[in-house]
Amino acid sequence: MELIKKDETLDDLQLKGLYVIQKKEGFRFGVDAVLLANFCKIKNNTRVIDLCTGTGIIPFILAGKTKASEICGLEIQDDMVEMANRSSMYNKLVDRVKFIRGDIKDAKLLKSLNRFDALTVNPPYKLQKSGIINFKDKDAIARHEILCNLEDVIKASRMLLKDNGRMYMVHRPDRLVDILTLMRKYKIEPKRIKMVHPSYGKAPNIVLVEGQRDGGAFLKWDEPLYVHNPDGTYTEEIEKIYGRI
Amino acid sequence: MELIKKDETLDDLQLKGLYVIQKKEGFRFGVDAVLLANFCKIKNNTRVIDLCTGTGIIPFILAGKTKASEICGLEIQDDMVEMANRSSMYNKLVDRVKFIRGDIKDAKLLKSLNRFDALTVNPPYKLQKSGIINFKDKDAIARHEILCNLEDVIKASRMLLKDNGRMYMVHRPDRLVDILTLMRKYKIEPKRIKMVHPSYGKAPNIVLVEGQRDGGAFLKWDEPLYVHNPDGTYTEEIEKIYGRI
Repeated sequence: MELIKKDETLDDLQLKGLYVIQKKEGFRFGVDAVLLANFCKIKNNTRVIDLCTGTGIIPFILAGKTKASEICGLEIQDDMVEMANRSSMYNKLVDRVKFIRGDIKDAKLLKSLNRFDALTVNPPYKLQKSGIINFKDKDAIARHEILCNLEDVIKASRMLLKDNGRMYMVHRPDRLVDILTLMRKYKIEPKRIKMVHPSYGKAPNIVLVEGQRDGGAFLKWDEPLYVHNPDGTYTEEIEKIYGRI
Repeated sequence: MELIKKDETLDDLQLKGLYVIQKKEGFRFGVDAVLLANFCKIKNNTRVIDLCTGTGIIPFILAGKTKASEICGLEIQDDMVEMANRSSMYNKLVDRVKFIRGDIKDAKLLKSLNRFDALTVNPPYKLQKSGIINFKDKDAIARHEILCNLEDVIKASRMLLKDNGRMYMVHRPDRLVDILTLMRKYKIEPKRIKMVHPSYGKAPNIVLVEGQRDGGAFLKWDEPLYVHNPDGTYTEEIEKIYGRI
């Protein structure tokens, strides 16, 4: 069996010899997924699920960085699931990293999965109304709230987490009111926020949020993360995250 | 009549010759009030109300910085209202800046006031349960949610604002989930947030929030404000706010 197809690339994660297969054209993982995988705190021998997993980038980074016993990726698009499972084979991780096809709005499916200790999600950011043309476009599905919206994601998270389980999400700061009110609605208490700024003095453009299922109300703000130094180079924190120092 | 009592000081705001009378001991205005007065955007010839006004510091800064036609300060503590009105006399602003004694939970009082174009509030920050001893302590009343809590403040704001009127609040970032969910509950949509950080790389310790009564959902993040430079001096933005450059 050919593990990598002609329209795909095999990309080195520069992390313990791990790779991820991606389509040459279409949605390729970005800084958001990498920041999220570094924001979350995964305990040893726990089970983790990643929603809207796409290429499986977050499960593979977590496989390299943590001692989670099982990492499951859930994805609605068939061909993405198939591709991510080939990445898992290539990485010899099939016992630990698995991808399943499913819709997060499918309550029956969610109930059929054993509950998880932690959940990660890098959901579509943009509101459906924000000017979409082709609803079958895979890139559009990954970026816009076409097949699932923020409420679907948070509702599913509640169903998938164990009591006191942790949810980790990356999103855009302009959606923070929606994020926090929906988390409260589904009793996943926001516990920690980290803002990511392009550089010193710039408004944040990425937000990382940690919630706890049925957690008590106490919100901690992390130190902000700056992506670039004033001279345009990457900051030390970013270089560390990408494993370059 | 003696305008300044023995246990009081007359403090220069370094703004158009304005002063504010404060108790020598007890709650004295801080950076929060100054930042809030600079965060809000007050149109010419509009009416503004400041809740939990204390010494009246916010109304006096707004009197100096804006062309609001009327600025009203609401305060529950009798002697603070009396002192703030003496400051107004001293500043020869009695026609424009008035202080009234009242409880923001008094719906009858709130209804008796004409609605306002804008509202500012620097409420008590700390939860009542957070270890308070003397409930009559004026300092404690200004700092802890003894006589009013966050929900009282936001509920009163809805009653006091005209349609599409703007609310401006300064608070602590660890209460942001409560702030945003309560604003949504009372249909004051959060429109703009500015985080204040002690310095580069430090977590924010003050949050400024602008809401609009019955506004549509769209949240903008301002550029953050840093109080200190890495060498410990005040940043240029802070020096500007304090009128020193």
